[in-house]
Amino acid sequence: MRAVDIIEKKRDGKTLTRDEIRFIVQGYTAGEVADYQVSALLMAIFLRGMTDAEAIALTEEMLYSGEVIDLSDLDRPRVDKHSTGGVGDKTSLVIAPVVAAAGVIVPMISGRALAHSGGTLDKLESIPGFRTNLSLTEFRSMLERIGVALIGQTAEIAPADRKLYALRDVTATVPCRPLMAASIMSKKMAEGITGLVLDVKVGNGAFMKSEDEARKLAELMIQVARGLGKDCVALLTDMSQPLGSRVGNALEVIEAFEALRGNGPEDFITLCRELSAEMLVLGRAATNIDEGRARYDELIASGAALEKMREIIVAQSGEPRTLDDYSLLPTARHQRVVKARRKGYVQAIDTEAIGRASMLLGAGRLRLDSKIDPGVGLTIAARIGDEVDENTPLATLHYNSAVLMDEAAALTLQAYQIGGERVEAPPLIKAALR
Amino acid sequence: MRAVDIIEKKRDGKTLTRDEIRFIVQGYTAGEVADYQVSALLMAIFLRGMTDAEAIALTEEMLYSGEVIDLSDLDRPRVDKHSTGGVGDKTSLVIAPVVAAAGVIVPMISGRALAHSGGTLDKLESIPGFRTNLSLTEFRSMLERIGVALIGQTAEIAPADRKLYALRDVTATVPCRPLMAASIMSKKMAEGITGLVLDVKVGNGAFMKSEDEARKLAELMIQVARGLGKDCVALLTDMSQPLGSRVGNALEVIEAFEALRGNGPEDFITLCRELSAEMLVLGRAATNIDEGRARYDELIASGAALEKMREIIVAQSGEPRTLDDYSLLPTARHQRVVKARRKGYVQAIDTEAIGRASMLLGAGRLRLDSKIDPGVGLTIAARIGDEVDENTPLATLHYNSAVLMDEAAALTLQAYQIGGERVEAPPLIKAALR
Repeated sequence: MRAVDIIEKKRDGKTLTRDEIRFIVQGYTAGEVADYQVSALLMAIFLRGMTDAEAIALTEEMLYSGEVIDLSDLDRPRVDKHSTGGVGDKTSLVIAPVVAAAGVIVPMISGRALAHSGGTLDKLESIPGFRTNLSLTEFRSMLERIGVALIGQTAEIAPADRKLYALRDVTATVPCRPLMAASIMSKKMAEGITGLVLDVKVGNGAFMKSEDEARKLAELMIQVARGLGKDCVALLTDMSQPLGSRVGNALEVIEAFEALRGNGPEDFITLCRELSAEMLVLGRAATNIDEGRARYDELIASGAALEKMREIIVAQSGEPRTLDDYSLLPTARHQRVVKARRKGYVQAIDTEAIGRASMLLGAGRLRLDSKIDPGVGLTIAARIGDEVDENTPLATLHYNSAVLMDEAAALTLQAYQIGGERVEAPPLIKAALR
Repeated sequence: MRAVDIIEKKRDGKTLTRDEIRFIVQGYTAGEVADYQVSALLMAIFLRGMTDAEAIALTEEMLYSGEVIDLSDLDRPRVDKHSTGGVGDKTSLVIAPVVAAAGVIVPMISGRALAHSGGTLDKLESIPGFRTNLSLTEFRSMLERIGVALIGQTAEIAPADRKLYALRDVTATVPCRPLMAASIMSKKMAEGITGLVLDVKVGNGAFMKSEDEARKLAELMIQVARGLGKDCVALLTDMSQPLGSRVGNALEVIEAFEALRGNGPEDFITLCRELSAEMLVLGRAATNIDEGRARYDELIASGAALEKMREIIVAQSGEPRTLDDYSLLPTARHQRVVKARRKGYVQAIDTEAIGRASMLLGAGRLRLDSKIDPGVGLTIAARIGDEVDENTPLATLHYNSAVLMDEAAALTLQAYQIGGERVEAPPLIKAALR
């Protein structure tokens, strides 16, 4: 078998066999197939597409390029959630303790912030002392002991994905449905889960800008998960404005802690409840979604979810007093309020621009090696449909360095489209694919 | 400027600017743009195409990646011919001395055999002692002295093309019109020519299988040449059977020497005459094609072309006695005749298979570093339209090693499609684009 023949086949729009996909994935991981051949193949896949069967084979080959955690001896359902990424999305910090408090195992391997989009690991690491770089042995031991762990991808998990993603990033082949599905699912399938809930974001702050695109990606990921024998459902959810009212790292941790006490913006609370309910059903801790929602409310009201979060923080060497005293979390030294310049209604918010403003302040990464400033970010005052006057606050910027402050403030102001027309906020949950 | 943005632009079917093309070509030649980015871009170009203006810009940037020979001080027209490659095409060995004998300068930089297709340099090197690796200084001195030189590509000429071609070869991006045009024309434009005649081959032994594809490539190459201020015409010629009756290296040299004496198969003689006539017109040694044809016949009949060939051989350190005594050329030790198995007419010849058979015998290269056996090859006995019986010889294989002999013989036999229907041989010259 030769890589050039496989490239030619895909170039001409033909379907690759599992053996051909294996040859490429194994060869690339082992350094035997050259990166310049793989990048040509990636571009051919981008422009020619892949069948569902090809995407499943690609996922499986990427999955078996590394270690696949076997948690079957834990003898309980094991369910994770994956979000395709957005602005202000801190649901994992609420969902993981809630679902684990219900007795479902939550083996959660998360990612870091990149470009305009935040990352669960960076948020967790704003808790002083919190370690996300647990070994797989520590991960397993936490799951046995407290039923949940929140860690970063280790070198053992899907090494093919790490190499492929780095290559896609510099060859303009990231936003390609089968490649995205295989990248996400190869990592998730390595977690030893029995079920997965997908939160596929739609809107100007998401990677998928249209509901149609998002639905196709969700359907493909469900096919892949089922092809590999896992339960999988997906919610398509709105990302045409930031989720909740805080964007940043410590800022979002506070919002998550508040949600664990039952407080916070309605959209964020609702999404946490809906995603948890789906996970509880897949985890057999609820027989239907309504029961799942009730269970969520109970676990919040009883304080069980908050206590589970305390266990997680302790187990991962974080400072548990932050749960009760938010002043122990990093904060920014300065604040600046961005105000509306005209009267009207918020028609739309350029959510990606909000994410970029947050990144400019230091909450995100321009490049993989950029350093995060955990205290900075934005609090969002006005949402789509809100009525504003001249000088109504739209958002507050929390910053430490003034260097990119003006650019961030200008971005934030421009992100708000204000007009005379009354508008309805878009629905949060657009569809459930089960 | 970032390579990834340029890749994305072409991926989305947009037109690249000259600055973007320059950034890639200069960056790649200098080792600053990575090969894995260039290969992704090449695949995007393959699948999305390029405008004529992009192809012209690409050619010019590749051309100026290296040395551009300036022969303007020679103060005479300088004309070369380029063939897109086929099986049995030894026309350069006849045309170069004919056109030079008419007083037109012929600065010819040729290529080597690859896959099923032969190479002028390998043919010339079957003449004992013949050197094709002249320096540019020697090249220029020969052109001043005898008006013609036949050399290989030097490291100074279009280094971007060498790097790009090597990358295209392993990434399935060779058969792409704008990339082919830029590759060919960047090298030809570096020769210091004023005019160029293109022989664009069409048929199952050519890279272009259909006349439509060949015409589009020819038109693009003419646009590129004119865009760079050169005269350029193209003939579309048949490659649905081998050209002439000999395929191999020394075998083809003998056929070329015979043609310089006015002897040989009609198709080969005709093509040499037609291409020479076009070159003589571009070189102002004839005012029209008919006059060019007459001039060709004169230069052959007078022996002037043969004497020019002798001058070339002497100037390039070859053994000039080979011109008169073909036994001084390498020959194969063994011969095997491949005979027809049934009665009928030759309907078609798989010309690429004949080329591959010749390669298997050792006349060509499977890879760039394969060694050539100069004496081996095939003589073709039956052509399209010929009537054959059981046991009529189709071709004779000239070989030294029996290793791949049976495979070559089987390929040759299978290449001949014999049937009951009477067929006409396809016309040799399909079109002239002037």
